[in-house]
Amino acid sequence: MENPFNDNYFMKKALQEAEIAFEKGEIPVGAVIVVDNKIIARTHNLTELLHDVTAHAEMQAITSAANFLGGKYLKGCTLYVTLEPCQMCAGALYWSQITKIVFGARDEQRGFMTMGTQLHPKTEVVSGVLADEASDLMVRFFASKRK
Amino acid sequence: MENPFNDNYFMKKALQEAEIAFEKGEIPVGAVIVVDNKIIARTHNLTELLHDVTAHAEMQAITSAANFLGGKYLKGCTLYVTLEPCQMCAGALYWSQITKIVFGARDEQRGFMTMGTQLHPKTEVVSGVLADEASDLMVRFFASKRK
Repeated sequence: MENPFNDNYFMKKALQEAEIAFEKGEIPVGAVIVVDNKIIARTHNLTELLHDVTAHAEMQAITSAANFLGGKYLKGCTLYVTLEPCQMCAGALYWSQITKIVFGARDEQRGFMTMGTQLHPKTEVVSGVLADEASDLMVRFFASKRK
Repeated sequence: MENPFNDNYFMKKALQEAEIAFEKGEIPVGAVIVVDNKIIARTHNLTELLHDVTAHAEMQAITSAANFLGGKYLKGCTLYVTLEPCQMCAGALYWSQITKIVFGARDEQRGFMTMGTQLHPKTEVVSGVLADEASDLMVRFFASKRK
Protein backbone atom coordinates (compact mmCIF):
# COMPACT_ATOMS: atom_id res chain seq x y z
CA MET A 1 0.00 0.00 0.00
CA GLU A 2 1.21 3.46 -0.82
CA ASN A 3 2.24 5.59 2.17
CA PRO A 4 -0.53 8.19 2.58
CA PHE A 5 1.88 10.58 4.33
CA ASN A 6 3.72 11.95 1.34
CA ASP A 7 4.65 15.51 0.36
CA ASN A 8 1.28 16.06 -1.34
CA TYR A 9 -0.56 15.02 1.81
CA PHE A 10 1.22 17.55 4.01
CA MET A 11 1.19 20.29 1.38
CA LYS A 12 -2.61 19.96 1.30
CA LYS A 13 -2.59 20.72 5.02
CA ALA A 14 -0.46 23.80 4.35
CA LEU A 15 -2.89 24.82 1.59
CA GLN A 16 -5.77 24.56 4.07
CA GLU A 17 -3.87 27.03 6.26
CA ALA A 18 -3.36 29.32 3.27
CA GLU A 19 -7.11 29.26 2.67
CA ILE A 20 -7.73 30.34 6.26
CA ALA A 21 -5.34 33.27 5.68
CA PHE A 22 -7.28 34.13 2.49
CA GLU A 23 -10.56 34.25 4.41
CA LYS A 24 -8.98 36.65 6.92
CA GLY A 25 -7.83 39.00 4.15
CA GLU A 26 -4.19 37.98 4.53
CA ILE A 27 -1.89 37.12 1.63
CA PRO A 28 -2.70 33.39 1.46
CA VAL A 29 0.38 31.53 2.59
CA GLY A 30 0.15 28.52 4.89
CA ALA A 31 2.67 26.23 6.52
CA VAL A 32 2.94 23.07 8.57
CA ILE A 33 5.95 21.47 10.23
CA VAL A 34 6.11 17.71 10.39
CA VAL A 35 8.19 15.22 12.40
CA ASP A 36 7.79 11.47 11.86
CA ASN A 37 4.58 12.04 9.89
CA LYS A 38 3.11 14.08 12.73
CA ILE A 39 2.13 17.72 12.26
CA ILE A 40 3.58 19.74 15.17
CA ALA A 41 2.83 23.26 13.85
CA ARG A 42 0.08 24.70 11.61
CA THR A 43 0.25 28.37 10.78
CA HIS A 44 -0.76 30.98 8.22
CA ASN A 45 0.32 34.46 7.37
CA LEU A 46 -0.95 37.07 9.86
CA THR A 47 1.02 40.18 8.93
CA GLU A 48 -2.08 42.37 8.45
CA LEU A 49 -4.03 41.31 11.51
CA LEU A 50 -0.98 41.55 13.78
CA HIS A 51 0.47 44.65 12.04
CA ASP A 52 3.75 42.76 12.05
CA VAL A 53 5.99 42.07 9.06
CA THR A 54 7.57 39.20 10.96
CA ALA A 55 4.29 37.24 11.19
CA HIS A 56 4.85 35.15 8.07
CA ALA A 57 3.50 31.60 8.23
CA GLU A 58 7.00 30.11 8.33
CA MET A 59 8.20 32.30 11.22
CA GLN A 60 5.23 31.33 13.34
CA ALA A 61 5.70 27.69 12.39
CA ILE A 62 9.36 27.75 13.45
CA THR A 63 8.48 29.30 16.82
CA SER A 64 5.57 26.94 17.32
CA ALA A 65 7.53 23.79 16.41
CA ALA A 66 10.47 24.77 18.63
CA ASN A 67 8.04 25.35 21.46
CA PHE A 68 6.53 21.91 20.90
CA LEU A 69 9.95 20.26 20.77
CA GLY A 70 11.40 22.21 23.71
CA GLY A 71 14.51 23.11 21.75
CA LYS A 72 15.41 25.66 19.13
CA TYR A 73 16.83 23.32 16.46
CA LEU A 74 14.43 21.68 14.03
CA LYS A 75 16.56 18.69 13.11
CA GLY A 76 14.40 15.87 11.80
CA CYS A 77 11.64 18.33 10.87
CA THR A 78 10.16 19.14 7.48
CA LEU A 79 8.52 22.48 6.71
CA TYR A 80 5.74 22.47 4.13
CA VAL A 81 4.94 25.96 2.92
CA THR A 82 2.72 26.97 0.00
CA LEU A 83 5.02 29.74 -1.26
CA GLU A 84 8.79 29.96 -1.58
CA PRO A 85 10.15 31.50 1.65
CA CYS A 86 11.47 35.08 1.62
CA GLN A 87 14.89 36.26 2.88
CA MET A 88 13.64 36.61 6.44
CA CYS A 89 12.06 33.17 6.60
CA ALA A 90 14.97 31.48 4.84
CA GLY A 91 17.30 33.25 7.28
CA ALA A 92 15.28 31.88 10.21
CA LEU A 93 15.28 28.42 8.63
CA TYR A 94 19.06 28.70 8.31
CA TRP A 95 19.36 29.20 12.08
CA SER A 96 16.90 26.38 12.79
CA GLN A 97 19.01 23.83 10.88
CA ILE A 98 15.74 22.31 9.67
CA THR A 99 16.20 19.01 7.83
CA LYS A 100 13.89 19.58 4.85
CA ILE A 101 11.89 22.38 3.24
CA VAL A 102 9.11 21.61 0.77
CA PHE A 103 7.51 24.57 -0.92
CA GLY A 104 4.76 25.00 -3.50
CA ALA A 105 4.87 28.02 -5.80
CA ARG A 106 8.00 30.00 -6.63
CA ASP A 107 8.18 33.66 -5.59
CA GLU A 108 10.26 34.91 -8.49
CA GLN A 109 10.47 38.43 -7.12
CA ARG A 110 11.13 38.07 -3.43
CA GLY A 111 11.79 34.38 -2.83
CA PHE A 112 15.04 33.32 -1.20
CA MET A 113 16.29 31.64 -4.37
CA THR A 114 16.10 34.89 -6.31
CA MET A 115 17.50 36.85 -3.37
CA GLY A 116 20.37 34.43 -2.80
CA THR A 117 19.64 33.78 0.86
CA GLN A 118 21.67 30.92 2.30
CA LEU A 119 20.05 27.95 3.96
CA HIS A 120 21.89 25.61 6.31
CA PRO A 121 24.12 23.31 4.23
CA LYS A 122 22.35 20.23 5.63
CA THR A 123 18.87 21.43 4.63
CA GLU A 124 17.25 19.62 1.68
CA VAL A 125 14.88 21.65 -0.51
CA VAL A 126 12.02 20.34 -2.64
CA SER A 127 9.99 22.78 -4.73
CA GLY A 128 6.89 22.75 -6.90
CA VAL A 129 4.68 20.51 -4.74
CA LEU A 130 1.06 21.49 -5.49
CA ALA A 131 2.47 24.69 -6.92
CA ASP A 132 -0.55 25.34 -9.14
CA GLU A 133 -2.95 25.19 -6.20
CA ALA A 134 -0.77 27.59 -4.21
CA SER A 135 -0.38 30.09 -7.02
CA ASP A 136 -4.07 29.89 -7.98
CA LEU A 137 -4.87 30.94 -4.44
CA MET A 138 -2.49 33.91 -4.71
CA VAL A 139 -3.90 34.96 -8.09
CA ARG A 140 -7.48 34.77 -6.74
CA PHE A 141 -6.46 36.77 -3.67
CA PHE A 142 -4.87 39.64 -5.58
CA ALA A 143 -7.75 39.64 -8.10
CA SER A 144 -10.23 39.97 -5.22
CA LYS A 145 -8.19 42.87 -3.76
CA ARG A 146 -8.28 44.75 -7.05
CA LYS A 147 -12.07 44.67 -7.18
CA MET B 1 24.58 73.19 22.49
CA GLU B 2 25.24 69.83 20.97
CA ASN B 3 22.19 67.59 20.51
CA PRO B 4 22.50 64.89 23.18
CA PHE B 5 20.37 62.54 21.11
CA ASN B 6 22.92 61.34 18.62
CA ASP B 7 23.80 57.86 17.35
CA ASN B 8 26.20 57.26 20.24
CA TYR B 9 23.48 58.10 22.76
CA PHE B 10 21.04 55.54 21.37
CA MET B 11 23.71 52.91 20.74
CA LYS B 12 24.59 53.11 24.42
CA LYS B 13 20.99 52.20 25.17
CA ALA B 14 21.28 49.24 22.82
CA LEU B 15 24.53 48.23 24.58
CA GLN B 16 22.72 48.29 27.91
CA GLU B 17 20.25 45.80 26.42
CA ALA B 18 23.15 43.67 25.19
CA GLU B 19 24.53 43.62 28.73
CA ILE B 20 21.19 42.37 30.04
CA ALA B 21 21.36 39.55 27.47
CA PHE B 22 24.91 38.76 28.64
CA GLU B 23 23.74 38.44 32.25
CA LYS B 24 21.05 36.00 31.12
CA GLY B 25 23.58 33.80 29.32
CA GLU B 26 22.39 34.95 25.89
CA ILE B 27 24.71 36.00 23.07
CA PRO B 28 24.91 39.69 23.98
CA VAL B 29 23.10 41.63 21.29
CA GLY B 30 20.80 44.52 22.13
CA ALA B 31 18.59 46.83 20.11
CA VAL B 32 16.43 49.90 20.41
CA ILE B 33 14.10 51.53 17.89
CA VAL B 34 13.78 55.30 17.93
CA VAL B 35 11.29 57.75 16.43
CA ASP B 36 11.75 61.49 16.89
CA ASN B 37 14.40 60.91 19.56
CA LYS B 38 12.01 58.70 21.52
CA ILE B 39 12.79 55.04 22.21
CA ILE B 40 9.72 52.97 21.32
CA ALA B 41 11.30 49.49 21.63
CA ARG B 42 14.12 48.06 23.77
CA THR B 43 15.03 44.42 23.28
CA HIS B 44 17.82 41.90 23.61
CA ASN B 45 18.53 38.48 22.24
CA LEU B 46 16.47 35.73 23.89
CA THR B 47 17.08 32.73 21.63
CA GLU B 48 18.28 30.47 24.46
CA LEU B 49 15.67 31.32 27.04
CA LEU B 50 12.83 31.08 24.55
CA HIS B 51 14.31 28.11 22.62
CA ASP B 52 13.55 30.13 19.51
CA VAL B 53 15.96 31.01 16.72
CA THR B 54 13.67 33.86 15.69
CA ALA B 55 14.07 35.69 19.04
CA HIS B 56 16.92 37.93 17.91
CA ALA B 57 16.93 41.42 19.43
CA GLU B 58 16.05 43.02 16.09
CA MET B 59 13.04 40.76 15.43
CA GLN B 60 11.56 41.52 18.82
CA ALA B 61 12.28 45.23 18.32
CA ILE B 62 10.46 45.25 14.97
CA THR B 63 7.40 43.52 16.46
CA SER B 64 7.46 45.76 19.52
CA ALA B 65 7.83 49.01 17.55
CA ALA B 66 5.07 48.04 15.11
CA ASN B 67 2.84 47.24 18.05
CA PHE B 68 3.58 50.66 19.55
CA LEU B 69 2.93 52.43 16.25
CA GLY B 70 -0.17 50.39 15.38
CA GLY B 71 1.11 49.68 11.88
CA LYS B 72 3.56 47.30 10.35
CA TYR B 73 5.78 49.79 8.51
CA LEU B 74 8.61 51.45 10.40
CA LYS B 75 8.94 54.55 8.25
CA GLY B 76 10.58 57.34 10.22
CA CYS B 77 12.16 54.84 12.60
CA THR B 78 15.81 54.12 13.29
CA LEU B 79 17.02 50.76 14.60
CA TYR B 80 20.14 50.78 16.76
CA VAL B 81 21.62 47.32 17.15
CA THR B 82 24.96 46.38 18.66
CA LEU B 83 25.82 43.74 16.03
CA GLU B 84 25.33 43.67 12.26
CA PRO B 85 21.96 42.03 11.55
CA CYS B 86 21.83 38.50 10.10
CA GLN B 87 19.93 37.40 6.98
CA MET B 88 16.71 36.85 8.93
CA CYS B 89 16.78 40.22 10.65
CA ALA B 90 17.81 42.08 7.51
CA GLY B 91 15.00 40.30 5.67
CA ALA B 92 12.52 41.46 8.33
CA LEU B 93 13.94 44.99 8.14
CA TYR B 94 13.45 44.86 4.37
CA TRP B 95 9.73 44.21 4.82
CA SER B 96 9.45 46.90 7.52
CA GLN B 97 10.78 49.60 5.18
CA ILE B 98 12.60 51.07 8.18
CA THR B 99 14.19 54.45 7.49
CA LYS B 100 17.61 53.92 9.08
CA ILE B 101 19.70 51.14 10.58
CA VAL B 102 22.68 51.91 12.81
CA PHE B 103 24.77 48.96 13.89
CA GLY B 104 27.90 48.54 16.01
CA ALA B 105 30.23 45.65 15.30
CA ARG B 106 30.45 43.82 11.98
CA ASP B 107 29.52 40.12 11.86
CA GLU B 108 31.96 39.08 9.16
CA GLN B 109 30.70 35.49 9.09
CA ARG B 110 26.93 35.73 9.25
CA GLY B 111 26.09 39.40 8.89
CA PHE B 112 23.76 40.52 6.11
CA MET B 113 26.53 42.37 4.29
CA THR B 114 28.59 39.20 3.93
CA MET B 115 25.48 37.16 3.10
CA GLY B 116 24.26 39.66 0.52
CA THR B 117 20.79 40.13 2.02
CA GLN B 118 18.85 42.99 0.46
CA LEU B 119 17.46 45.83 2.53
CA HIS B 120 14.70 48.13 1.33
CA PRO B 121 16.18 50.58 -1.20
CA LYS B 122 15.08 53.54 0.96
CA THR B 123 16.84 52.27 4.10
CA GLU B 124 19.98 54.13 5.14
CA VAL B 125 22.70 52.12 6.91
CA VAL B 126 25.35 53.43 9.31
CA SER B 127 27.91 51.00 10.74
CA GLY B 128 30.68 51.02 13.31
CA VAL B 129 28.97 53.09 16.03
CA LEU B 130 30.51 52.01 19.36
CA ALA B 131 31.70 48.91 17.55
CA ASP B 132 34.55 48.27 20.00
CA GLU B 133 32.18 48.22 22.98
CA ALA B 134 29.85 45.80 21.17
CA SER B 135 32.59 43.44 20.07
CA ASP B 136 34.31 43.55 23.48
CA LEU B 137 31.05 42.32 24.97
CA MET B 138 30.91 39.46 22.45
CA VAL B 139 34.55 38.50 23.08
CA ARG B 140 33.99 38.52 26.86
CA PHE B 141 30.84 36.43 26.44
CA PHE B 142 32.45 33.70 24.36
CA ALA B 143 35.54 33.69 26.63
CA SER B 144 33.27 33.14 29.65
CA LYS B 145 31.50 30.28 27.85
CA ARG B 146 34.80 28.50 27.15
CA LYS B 147 35.75 28.46 30.84
